Amino acid sequence: MEAGDFDSVEKRAFHRKNQRRRPSVAEEFNGLPAHVWPTTATRDEEGVISIGGVPLPEIAAEFGTPVFVVDENDFRSRCRQMADAFGGPGNVHYASKAFLSRRIARWVADEGLALDVASLGELQVALAAGFPAERITAHGNNKKEEFMRLCVTEGVGHVVLDCPQEIDRLNAIAAAEDATVEVMVRVKPGIEAHTHEFIATSHEDQKFGFSLASGSAEQACLDAVKAPNLDLVGLHCHVGSQVFDAQGFSLAAERLLTLMRKLKDSVSGADAAKITLLDLGGGYGIAYTAAQKPLDVATVAGNLIKEVAEKSAELGLDRPQILVEPGRAIAGPSTVTLYTVGTVKDVHTSAEHTRRYIAIDGGMSDNIRPALYSADYEARVAGRLTDGESVDTRLVGSHCESGDILISDAAWPDDIGTGDLIAVPGTGAYCFAMSSRYNMIMRPAVVSVKDGKAELMVRRETIEDVLALDMM
Amino acid sequence: MEAGDFDSVEKRAFHRKNQRRRPSVAEEFNGLPAHVWPTTATRDEEGVISIGGVPLPEIAAEFGTPVFVVDENDFRSRCRQMADAFGGPGNVHYASKAFLSRRIARWVADEGLALDVASLGELQVALAAGFPAERITAHGNNKKEEFMRLCVTEGVGHVVLDCPQEIDRLNAIAAAEDATVEVMVRVKPGIEAHTHEFIATSHEDQKFGFSLASGSAEQACLDAVKAPNLDLVGLHCHVGSQVFDAQGFSLAAERLLTLMRKLKDSVSGADAAKITLLDLGGGYGIAYTAAQKPLDVATVAGNLIKEVAEKSAELGLDRPQILVEPGRAIAGPSTVTLYTVGTVKDVHTSAEHTRRYIAIDGGMSDNIRPALYSADYEARVAGRLTDGESVDTRLVGSHCESGDILISDAAWPDDIGTGDLIAVPGTGAYCFAMSSRYNMIMRPAVVSVKDGKAELMVRRETIEDVLALDMM
Repeated sequence: MEAGDFDSVEKRAFHRKNQRRRPSVAEEFNGLPAHVWPTTATRDEEGVISIGGVPLPEIAAEFGTPVFVVDENDFRSRCRQMADAFGGPGNVHYASKAFLSRRIARWVADEGLALDVASLGELQVALAAGFPAERITAHGNNKKEEFMRLCVTEGVGHVVLDCPQEIDRLNAIAAAEDATVEVMVRVKPGIEAHTHEFIATSHEDQKFGFSLASGSAEQACLDAVKAPNLDLVGLHCHVGSQVFDAQGFSLAAERLLTLMRKLKDSVSGADAAKITLLDLGGGYGIAYTAAQKPLDVATVAGNLIKEVAEKSAELGLDRPQILVEPGRAIAGPSTVTLYTVGTVKDVHTSAEHTRRYIAIDGGMSDNIRPALYSADYEARVAGRLTDGESVDTRLVGSHCESGDILISDAAWPDDIGTGDLIAVPGTGAYCFAMSSRYNMIMRPAVVSVKDGKAELMVRRETIEDVLALDMM
Repeated sequence: MEAGDFDSVEKRAFHRKNQRRRPSVAEEFNGLPAHVWPTTATRDEEGVISIGGVPLPEIAAEFGTPVFVVDENDFRSRCRQMADAFGGPGNVHYASKAFLSRRIARWVADEGLALDVASLGELQVALAAGFPAERITAHGNNKKEEFMRLCVTEGVGHVVLDCPQEIDRLNAIAAAEDATVEVMVRVKPGIEAHTHEFIATSHEDQKFGFSLASGSAEQACLDAVKAPNLDLVGLHCHVGSQVFDAQGFSLAAERLLTLMRKLKDSVSGADAAKITLLDLGGGYGIAYTAAQKPLDVATVAGNLIKEVAEKSAELGLDRPQILVEPGRAIAGPSTVTLYTVGTVKDVHTSAEHTRRYIAIDGGMSDNIRPALYSADYEARVAGRLTDGESVDTRLVGSHCESGDILISDAAWPDDIGTGDLIAVPGTGAYCFAMSSRYNMIMRPAVVSVKDGKAELMVRRETIEDVLALDMM
């Protein structure tokens, strides 16, 4: 099936217009659901999708495929929505693990947000972008000595303590540098928020943080208060990822406030006055498909702020400053991945059923999420309108692995073929960030778009990049 | 728990020697099961593990951690075992997707084996190593035009056809270059071999190859025979990965031989005479843990060769040349990953139960297999003997993700702490090859060892490598 097979598209479309019927699979397939696509995504009469005013076929032609296309306005607008929802940009820490480049760090800085880093490398990239160190918070369950030292010497805003050894180590590093470091303590509140439910337990069997139930969180806070070169300024928790049921956030906040009350009662007034931050982490769910509904951040934030205020009043606490750490909720919807269809193959899965395998020029190396998390995605043809009858379709990658599947089971029009451009929305978080060179398929380019202009953000890897590491 | 906590190890070991009892957890933990560790792995009286005559602590000191340590003798010896089992090195194609560097390609070339590549990048690395093109076979469900062209211009030995479009495209490229390309057709024989079972079906719902049941495999062969610039020289199949039940290979071979018989009856004598190869793919299982038993390749190969001979005789065929494509079975056991313990944390998972979380300085970026495939691994302390009582232990990485777990549930001695070197065996396949820069944790170095010498094979990535791609 070559691209030339599609010259009857117009005729069929005309024919359909003259019939009354439910939306065809092609009509649904041609739509760009606003909650899934970047805010500037548009489709013209020929069906060409543009983002940031730049037609995606032009991006494919200029930069090749696969390519990530990041909508700068979308990214920035989500920064601002989060800032508005949570009472100001300083309360929102962009979680750089979702996706970080120097340009991304600059956008985050411009918007006045803070930045979370979880490794030496993330800190180095942020600093290389000129991100103000005092607006950086450092995370990690196993922070390298070198990472902690750079946090101290560069004066990052906060370090989040994750285990007992770290209290001593960070204090020693701070002492050696004659510095005082503001710290938060990561608490396991016994809440695991999943996509559509949350589980409240008294224990949490995971690597991050100090247990609330066992008393180790309280002990860690007291130890941090006592450490001469650390200032305890807040409590931190993170209850889950891709969360749609916001009750988990509320319950975690309540539990942390109760701990905060206990702490303020047991430390000196001066030390108690320093504890002002309640960092509730990230996890705000986004829509990867039309059927999913993103978490309504403004409503969730409003409720959360109200609940924290009420609970604080009940406990006789000044309301702490609420911090949040969205990564996916800012970066995820801003980006689409653009691929080119290579081979198309109809596979008889039984005597009655055929599945169409459409292979694109990327796969699990640029998006491991379907294989790793059974994540769902949708896609569209980016360069034209589609038409045709529905056919069960599987979108697969080019890797030498049968599990290299991007979209496992979709009903797509049957007129998609070799040379078509496929755009997969919602790929701004944990796609490029987790990309590999499996099968020596090089990492794609990343391009940012805005006001009709496309600009390379991360260049495509080449064989020379591979051989530069290879010592013969 | 710091490294200094372990000065009572000798006393406890002395005490134990004077009691009669079952092997303690420490004794088991100190052993190096020969079927899991590289063949040159040894442990001295102090417990220092050496590979290729090089103490692992020396490698950690010189190259840092995490680091992959590849035992050259082990790798080469498995090349030779495969060659012996399957009747000569030319019948064994090392599957480079498991792990490829220029040095690996040279070892494979030295041993006389052939090489499988599944992408343009893998072919480029092989050619950059000087691997003889005529001993290369090219795979892939979605071969890029540029890949196929390079196959033709460099004269690779075989191209394995995977879908109808490819027959025309490859023929056209070969015609344009005035070349004839030897091809095999990838057949879906309706056999899925899993670790300890196989499933025989008439259909296979996966992206690779042409269906035997639907007749599309036969049609593809006939089309390839007809294509003026292609020579059909064999049939190919691949039934699964990490297979321990070899019956799946036999049944697939039978089905392919039946197809071969049909083909030879329907094409000209000259074309029939060219069809001499039966490529049965890879999938030979290795032991990642002491409890697993690697597939006995010599026995499996002996049986397979015998069965193919019998079936060929029955069908009146000359016995075809059997080719195999081991990747994991050659590269996997040759390599250990060396990590350094950072933080150690005891987590109460219930009122009665504690789990120890030991965090190392790598994780899902250098070994995605536990997260992606629920793969099992074992580990050892590399620099000393351990002693102590058993404690439920989870080995976790440094990534900002709770699923970043290398070994989920192990009973380890309770004297392992910060600064200890942890060696994980069986990491030669699909670890470095699938490695990412998630959390901007840089890819580890790879070091090869032999006869007391360690040599850098792939250098560690640096922040400069990241920023070299980042366009500001």
